[in-house]
Amino acid sequence: PDRQTGEDGGPGTGTEDESSEFGQLASVPHGPRLGIGMDSCVIPLRHGGLSLIQTTDFFYPLVEDPYMMGRIACANVLSDLYAMGITECDNMLMLLSVSQKMNDKEREQVMPLMMKGFRDAAEEGGTSVTGGQTVINPWIIIGGVATVVCQPSDFIMPDGAIPGDVLVLTKPLGTQVAVNAHQWLDNPEKWNKIKLVISKDEVEHAYQEAMLNMATLNRTAAALMHKFNAHAATDITGFGIIGHARNLAKQQRNDVAFVIHNLPIISKMAAVSKAGGNLFGLLQGTSSETSGGLLICLPREQAARFCAEMKEGTAGDGQQAWIIGIVEKGTRCARIIDKPRIIEVPYRGAVAATQEGNSHGASPPEAQAALA
Amino acid sequence: PDRQTGEDGGPGTGTEDESSEFGQLASVPHGPRLGIGMDSCVIPLRHGGLSLIQTTDFFYPLVEDPYMMGRIACANVLSDLYAMGITECDNMLMLLSVSQKMNDKEREQVMPLMMKGFRDAAEEGGTSVTGGQTVINPWIIIGGVATVVCQPSDFIMPDGAIPGDVLVLTKPLGTQVAVNAHQWLDNPEKWNKIKLVISKDEVEHAYQEAMLNMATLNRTAAALMHKFNAHAATDITGFGIIGHARNLAKQQRNDVAFVIHNLPIISKMAAVSKAGGNLFGLLQGTSSETSGGLLICLPREQAARFCAEMKEGTAGDGQQAWIIGIVEKGTRCARIIDKPRIIEVPYRGAVAATQEGNSHGASPPEAQAALA
Repeated sequence: PDRQTGEDGGPGTGTEDESSEFGQLASVPHGPRLGIGMDSCVIPLRHGGLSLIQTTDFFYPLVEDPYMMGRIACANVLSDLYAMGITECDNMLMLLSVSQKMNDKEREQVMPLMMKGFRDAAEEGGTSVTGGQTVINPWIIIGGVATVVCQPSDFIMPDGAIPGDVLVLTKPLGTQVAVNAHQWLDNPEKWNKIKLVISKDEVEHAYQEAMLNMATLNRTAAALMHKFNAHAATDITGFGIIGHARNLAKQQRNDVAFVIHNLPIISKMAAVSKAGGNLFGLLQGTSSETSGGLLICLPREQAARFCAEMKEGTAGDGQQAWIIGIVEKGTRCARIIDKPRIIEVPYRGAVAATQEGNSHGASPPEAQAALA
Repeated sequence: PDRQTGEDGGPGTGTEDESSEFGQLASVPHGPRLGIGMDSCVIPLRHGGLSLIQTTDFFYPLVEDPYMMGRIACANVLSDLYAMGITECDNMLMLLSVSQKMNDKEREQVMPLMMKGFRDAAEEGGTSVTGGQTVINPWIIIGGVATVVCQPSDFIMPDGAIPGDVLVLTKPLGTQVAVNAHQWLDNPEKWNKIKLVISKDEVEHAYQEAMLNMATLNRTAAALMHKFNAHAATDITGFGIIGHARNLAKQQRNDVAFVIHNLPIISKMAAVSKAGGNLFGLLQGTSSETSGGLLICLPREQAARFCAEMKEGTAGDGQQAWIIGIVEKGTRCARIIDKPRIIEVPYRGAVAATQEGNSHGASPPEAQAALA
């Protein structure tokens, strides 16, 4: 099917800052409020200091495995809550469209798998899907709405970075490059551009690695944000690491700048990007990620322990995390230094994928063909 | 653009009743719970007896006026809350896609108007849009997510109908017929089928009337549901009045059947449906409605006063409501009697539309052409 990456953000109001409006409302309940512009919206409720926090995301399939696609879509929606240090989700709605171009058999193969992947990831996140909306469309759409009602202590407003903090990233970059390189296996012209720097096997492994990363919930990172006193965070998606770093910098209460020194990237994807003529601007941080990691501002003395506990995991689901930069005094901006250090993040490989991915399941080949 | 009516309901799980699952969860907070199958989901929260109630809906433009389309989409989303007697909405998210087939000028004309219509209707509903998601798609998509956190007394579970109740409907039927008849003005072959029963002027008026009705919030009805002790309600959308009546009947705790005697229909639309060869099954109750009225089960002695107070309105926005049937003892089913009485609901006409529709605004002709 056609592919189109959805982008985060408010509905076409990118330049509009609605948070300023709210200052004029006299009868609004007290509490922090966050409108269009960040990952989730935060609405103070009329009940006992509680806040309503919610987010929505939907996009189009970008991997061939419908089950994994469902997981990725759900992980991507939940990620906006996790970026605020929220570990629980009270409710999930599913947004879905069935492609009018699929025949009945394809629909029956693909849609239940995609929905199962979505539901399984929701369950892993401790929530469940209670409703949603389904339509017919030329393209397949998959997404959701995640909502939680919580106490002030349950979430971390993304505005408290201070000079001296360090920046931690919890998933490697390069998902867009890996997904595209995988498509190019069937496109001789494109493949010729990159075949000198990567083998077909490596592309397959990079693609599997990207898929596993995208399907991984940022829930452990959200829990550790509280334990290690994170000051602010965002998740890395459509605008790439530099786009989201800049967006986060703008939200800060203090005069800070984010400086990124290291770029952890799925192995070989930096070379593929270079060979492809600076593909998607991966090394400039502009390449889109889907369901990427959290970018977290942590007190310097806590960051190493944060990364260590990420690796241990809370349930044998250890993930890597990297210290990638620092918070300086500055004008609420972000940049990547010239010649950042590229950290080549190795593929866990088929064995690891099977071990870790046991609960991930996999869709049968014919179901994958229908999404290809 | 292509047109496709979205349908209510869970994501492709029409036959699946998830509410049974919840009985197995031991640690779930107490309180009523409603899953896939009805208008909104109801999730008991961990905080002081509060419930999270939310709903999502998105679909494709079905009228040419982008501003009115935005209003209709928002009214349609809110309607699922109103059907539970909820009058407040804590938060609204907007779901949007921009059509890749529009040129820049068309986008700039159409999308801001559609968003303004949506926001204005949200404001009329006492809420505001704080976020959402926008993508590119072959088709324009407009929709939203409405969420409220409330006390048990704020909502009415749609399961308390008893024999002896009467059924009240708060908007006339026939929106799908009116919208299609309007499109047929430009289709000689189709127009020939219906021109003996309706004039072009009347089609234009019926279309305007349908548009006004679809853009009207069911909020007054929701408030009056409390005042007059409504036992259950639903809103009439994609499955037509009989589809939603059946769905509501299935949810009831008591052994009841809904019997519909009267069908209030936008003037001439019954004749158009007949002339078109029983178009959309309007007289059988299967014709889709968009942002239709509430179908409410009321104690018999309260229904007349309910309709009277609807007509008075709460803010000079009087709407009609009709007693259309009764609740009998039965097997949780619904039917329309043979030869129901057709109530021809007159067009309010251009003058009324201007008076009532002052706040509705209207899009300039060139913006309407882009959606045509």
